[in-house]
Formats: sequence, C-alpha cells, structure tokens
Amino acid sequence: MRIYDIIEKKKHGKVLSKEEIEFTIRAYLQGEIPDYQVSALLMAIWFNGMQPQETTDLTLSMAHSGDMVDLSAIEGMVVDKHSTGGVGDKTTFIVTPIAACLGVKIAKMSGRGLGHTGGTVDKMEAIPGLRTQLEPAEFFEIVNRVGACVIGQTGNLAPADKKIYALRDVTATVDSIPLIASSIMSKKLASGAGAIVLDVKVGSGAFMKDIERAEELARTMVEIGKLAGRKVVALITDMDQPLGQSVGNRNEMAEVIQTLRGQGPKDLTDLSIELASQMIVLGREMDLKQARKEALATIESGEAYAKFIEMIQAQGADISYLEDLDAFASADHQSELLAGEKGIITQIDAQEVGLSAAMLGAGRKEVTDTIDYTAGIKLHKKVGDQVLEGEVLAVLQSADADTLQAAKERLRAAYQFGDGAQPRPLIFKTIN
Amino acid sequence: MRIYDIIEKKKHGKVLSKEEIEFTIRAYLQGEIPDYQVSALLMAIWFNGMQPQETTDLTLSMAHSGDMVDLSAIEGMVVDKHSTGGVGDKTTFIVTPIAACLGVKIAKMSGRGLGHTGGTVDKMEAIPGLRTQLEPAEFFEIVNRVGACVIGQTGNLAPADKKIYALRDVTATVDSIPLIASSIMSKKLASGAGAIVLDVKVGSGAFMKDIERAEELARTMVEIGKLAGRKVVALITDMDQPLGQSVGNRNEMAEVIQTLRGQGPKDLTDLSIELASQMIVLGREMDLKQARKEALATIESGEAYAKFIEMIQAQGADISYLEDLDAFASADHQSELLAGEKGIITQIDAQEVGLSAAMLGAGRKEVTDTIDYTAGIKLHKKVGDQVLEGEVLAVLQSADADTLQAAKERLRAAYQFGDGAQPRPLIFKTIN
Repeated sequence: MRIYDIIEKKKHGKVLSKEEIEFTIRAYLQGEIPDYQVSALLMAIWFNGMQPQETTDLTLSMAHSGDMVDLSAIEGMVVDKHSTGGVGDKTTFIVTPIAACLGVKIAKMSGRGLGHTGGTVDKMEAIPGLRTQLEPAEFFEIVNRVGACVIGQTGNLAPADKKIYALRDVTATVDSIPLIASSIMSKKLASGAGAIVLDVKVGSGAFMKDIERAEELARTMVEIGKLAGRKVVALITDMDQPLGQSVGNRNEMAEVIQTLRGQGPKDLTDLSIELASQMIVLGREMDLKQARKEALATIESGEAYAKFIEMIQAQGADISYLEDLDAFASADHQSELLAGEKGIITQIDAQEVGLSAAMLGAGRKEVTDTIDYTAGIKLHKKVGDQVLEGEVLAVLQSADADTLQAAKERLRAAYQFGDGAQPRPLIFKTIN
Repeated sequence: MRIYDIIEKKKHGKVLSKEEIEFTIRAYLQGEIPDYQVSALLMAIWFNGMQPQETTDLTLSMAHSGDMVDLSAIEGMVVDKHSTGGVGDKTTFIVTPIAACLGVKIAKMSGRGLGHTGGTVDKMEAIPGLRTQLEPAEFFEIVNRVGACVIGQTGNLAPADKKIYALRDVTATVDSIPLIASSIMSKKLASGAGAIVLDVKVGSGAFMKDIERAEELARTMVEIGKLAGRKVVALITDMDQPLGQSVGNRNEMAEVIQTLRGQGPKDLTDLSIELASQMIVLGREMDLKQARKEALATIESGEAYAKFIEMIQAQGADISYLEDLDAFASADHQSELLAGEKGIITQIDAQEVGLSAAMLGAGRKEVTDTIDYTAGIKLHKKVGDQVLEGEVLAVLQSADADTLQAAKERLRAAYQFGDGAQPRPLIFKTIN
C-alpha cells in the first residue's frame, strides 16, 4: 500500500477503504509517511469530504492509535458529555451532579481553555484544593462511590489525532466537517463511555457560525458514534451570546452553585436540564419528559447541589471558599462597562466577550500562559434587554488593573443596539 | 504575509496576487516555508486551478528563481522548440538544421530521458565525440557561426520549479494544467528565447491522453508566453503511436539522417516540416505557406542535411560513424516480433513501446541508470497497416541478449488488431 495512491484516490473523490485509512494513520504516527503527503491528503479530504463509513474508520483508527480507556471497573452505565466549545459554558458542572443523582455514572475527562473558550479543568482548579489529575484507581473509586468524577485528560488518548490536528492547524484544513467530527469523536471513543451527549454550539462564539454547518457536524458525529456501537445524541445549541451571566473561572463556578441552588440564569438552567435529561435518557432508557421532570426535581430538592459538593470534596476541594460566593468570585480590581446609548441589545458577540475575558487574565493566548482565576466578566444585561444610557452592561474584573481599560474597549465593541432583537432559540435541534 | 492565508485563499478559489505568489516561491526555495504547507497549497491549486495571470506570475517567479540565460550575444532572432515528451520523437534534430538554414537562430537546451520517453541529450551522445556540455561562450559562438546548437541543460535554471516538481511528484499533484504549464514555461522563459514553438503531444504515449486536456495545456502555455512577452505557438500532435519507425538512440539518429536526406518516414517528415515552418514564421515573420515551401526545399537541396553535419561536427561529433548507418545503428543481439494473426493494426500503444525500448537498455527507469545506445526497436508496420500472420511487426535489438524475450512480450501486448483503424490526424490543432 502506498500513500501516493491513497492521495490520488481521495483526490478523485473515491472512498478510502478501512485498510487504507488504518495504514495511513499507523504509518503517519510512526513517522513512516512525511507531513507533506498527509497535508496533501487532508486538503483532498477538505475538497471531497468523506463518506460516513470512511469518517468512522478514520475516527476509530485515531482512537485506537493510543490508550483505549477501560471503564469496566465502573458499575452501571457511563454516559459522557461533550461540548464543541463556547463562552460561559459551565454546564458540565451542573449536568454531572444531576445525572449522578439519577443513577447515571459520569467518568469524564476534560480539557483546558485556549483562545476565546474557557476550559473545564481550569474552572475546577479555580476552587482551591480540587485535584484534576487522578490515577485511574482513584478516578474509578470516586465514580463508583459518588456517581461522578471530572478530571483532566490522562494517558495517551488518540495521539494520531493530536499529530494530525497540529498539521491541519498550519495547512488550513481545520474547517472540514469529517475531520472535525473524527477529531472530536476519536477522543470520545477512546475515553470509553458507552453513551455520549454532544452539545454542538452554533453562533458568534462557536466554531460553527451557521446552523446548517452545525447540523452537518452534529449528524456526522452521531453517525460515527452509532457506527462505532455507541449511543449518541447531539443538541445544537445557541452560542451567539455567552451562556449565563458569568465568563471567567471563579465567577463561573459561583454561577454553577447558584444554578444548582435554583437561582441561576434561565438559559444556563434550561440547557443544563436538557443536557442532563438526554444523558438520563441514554443511560437509563427513561422517557425524555420524565427525565426532564426528575432532573428539575434534583435541583428543587437540593440533591444536585449536595451531589456537586460531594463530588468536588471527593477530589479534595476546600469548600470553605464557597461559603461566601461573592468573596470567592471577587477580584482586586474591577470596572463597570456602561451603556453609551439607550436601546435594546441586539447582539453580544460571544467570541469577543471570551477574548475580552482572556485579556483580563481568565484565559490563555498560548498553552503556556497562566490563568488569573479571579479575572472575568459578569454580564448584567443580555440580548433582548432594554438599557438606558449610563446603565451597567457588564462588570469586568482582574488581579491586574492594567488590563481593565483595553478589555473594556474590546468588550464594548462586542455589543450592538437597535430597536428590537430577533429572538434565537436556546436549543435549535436534537439529533439522534 | 503568511503562507497559511495564501493556502486558505486558494482553498476558497480566490485569485492569488503576484506578491503572494512571489512570496511563496521565494520563501519555499529558501526553506522558510515547509513542504507540508506547499503540498497543501498545490492540492488546493489542483482542485481550484489558476487564472491566466496567476499561472503567469507563478511561471515568472519560478523562472526568476535561478539563472535567466542571456542570449544577447547571439545575433538574430532566437527561436526555441519544446515537446511535452513522446516516444520516437527525434524532431529536434530535423527542425533545428532546417530552421537554421532559413536564418533562424536556435540555442537550445535539452533534457535526458526518463521512464518511457527518450531524451534529446541521450540521443546526441549516441554519436561518439558529440559534446553536450558546453560553456556559454562556445555555445554562443557555435550558434552565431553555424546557426544552431543543442546542448544539455546548464546553469541553475528555475530551481524553484525543480523543488516544487519533486514535491508534486510525491503528493499526487503532477496532473494539474496550470502546474504543468508553469513548470514547462518557467524553464523555457529562463532559457532566454524570444519565441517558442511548443509541441503538445496527445495520446497513449503522451502525458495528456485526451485532446481536450492537451488543448487546455497548449492554450495555457501560449497564454503564459504571451503574458510574459514572448511569441509562442503550440501544435497539438499525435502520440498515440510512436513517431517514425525507430525508438532508441543510435537508431533514432540514423532515422534523423535518413529524414534529412529526404528518405524518412512520412509522419516524422511532415511533423518536422510543420514545426520548423512555425519556427520560421515566429523568427522571420514569414507567411506559413511560404515557410513550409522553403523548409521542404532545404531537405530536397541537401542543405538541411549539410547543416546538421556542420552542427554536430562543431560539437565534436566523429561523423565517420555515420558513413554506414546500418552498422552505426546495429546491436549485438536482435529479435523479430512476428504477427500472431492476420489483420489491420488498430493500435500500437506508444507508452508500452517506450517502456519496451527502455527494458532493452535504451532508456532509464531511474535517473542514475546508464544507457545502451545500440538498444531499441524498429517498427516495420504502423497503425493502419495490413499484416499477414508471421510477418515482421518490429525488430528489437540490444547489447544484452537476456532482455530481448521480456521486452518482446511487452511490445507484443502494445499491438491491437482489427478490421480497420480509425485514422488519426498527425496535427490536431495549431494554437496561437
């Protein structure tokens, strides 16, 4: 088998066989095929796409290129949840205790933030003491005892995906649906869960800017999951403005707690209930309406909040920091963004909010940057809200006073005002 | 300027600017852009093509990446001739003396053979003493004195093309019209001639198998030449069967002499007259009909033959070898290919004839292979000829008796027989 022939075949729009895909992935990872041949193949894939079986073969080849996590030590059905990345998205911490309360096991590995999107692991580490690097034995023990555990990525998951992603990143071949789908799903399949709920974001703060592309990505990932023998459902959800009111790390964890206490923002609460319900449907084959009812009840009863505390305590969190949430989420310096005009907010560009928060210290431009957990933005108004001139739109905070002004100017530019906002649904579609 | 943005632009089918193309070529040749980004760009060009101005900018960038041959030391109009490569194509040695007799200057640099096509320089070196590596001063002196000189490629011509071609060769991006056209034309423009006659071959022995692609290539090269300020004409000519009767090195040179003496095969004579006439038209602005008449007259009068002898003697050829052409073109071993059936020859696959000749020792599989100048094939019958069972189709010869049998089997498979052959024109089209 020769990589030349494989490039030639894909160039002419033909379907690659499982053997050809496996050969390519294995030989590339072993350094037997040079980057320049793989980048030509990736560009041919960008143009000609891949059939569902091809995309699945690619996903499985990349998944099997490294460790395949064995979750058999966990009793019960393990359900995973993955978001394609957004701004202010802290749903993982809300859906995890809800689903665990209802008998679904969550053994989740998450990533760190980069660019305009925050990272689940960074947000957890904003709570002092909380350990995100656990050995498998402790990870499984917590999942079995508490029902849920969220840690940082461990082991050598899908190294072929890592190598290919790095090449795509410099050859303008990132924005290909089969390549995005196989990249995400290879890591999910390697992570071992039998069922996966996917949250595909769409809008200004998402990688997918329009609903058609988001739906295509969602369908492709669901198809891969099914062809790989997993139960998968995907929600296409709004990321045209940030989710909830808080963007940062400590402030997002405070918002998680408020939401688990039943006092969270409506969009965050609604999306979390829906995602948790879908996890319960997959994990327990419960009816969706019933799942929604039971999910909501775990918040109303305080059970979900208690489960969250139990989970983070099991991972070493010092929960005394959470007694006064305002103090926990405050920073040394803050500044208010005031409305310069009267009107209705028609747009808050989520990517710009994320980048403004990163400027304050809440995120990373480079993977080696350190994070200021106290930095962030609190949105007092959201799309559709009427504001008067001089009213507070948002509060910015940071440990570094010098960043406030520039971040505020950037944040101001994220807003648009008008006579009325076109309402956008929170959940566009469910694909299964 | 970033190569990433250039890839992204071409991926979306946009037109690259002159600055973007020049940046890419310069930075790639200097090793500042890695192969994997250029191969992604080449694949995007394969899919989206290039506009005439883009292709011209690419051609000029590659031409200017190395030496630009200065032909100002030559008095009179220098006209170049280039063939896209065929089997049995020895027209260069016939058109060169004809055109030189009629006052056109030819200062031509040619290549060696590889794969199924022979090389002009190899054929010349089949005549003992003939030197193909000359210093510029001697090269120009011969052109000025004799009117023509053909040598091997010298200097550092279009090194960017060389580097890009090597990358295309391993990334399945060779068969792109703008990339083929710019590769050929970059070397032609760097070679310095003010006018160029292109012979674009089409058929089983040519890189272009169908007439539409050949025409597209021809038009693209003519367009590049004109945008670069040169006079260019392209003929699209048949290479579905070998040109003439001889395929090899010494036997092809013997056929050249027979043709210059007016006793050559009709197809070879006709094509040579046409190519020479086009060169005279470009070089002297003569009317085409008049040029054809005068070209033919140089053969009938013996002038063209005398000019050829003068030219090769100026380059050191020992012409005593040419006194007995049969002896010159003979080999130690030979074998006849006999017709296994009665019928009309409907096809002689030119590529297969070329590969059979290479097996005999007449060509190279790898650039480092050495050549047996006595090896080759003489076709006694051509497409359209009626043959009886047992009649001689061809004679194979080689210094190595062991190669005869396998080459004969390969050659046999190149023939097809039927009730009648579809006549193909020798010259399909003239594009200017």
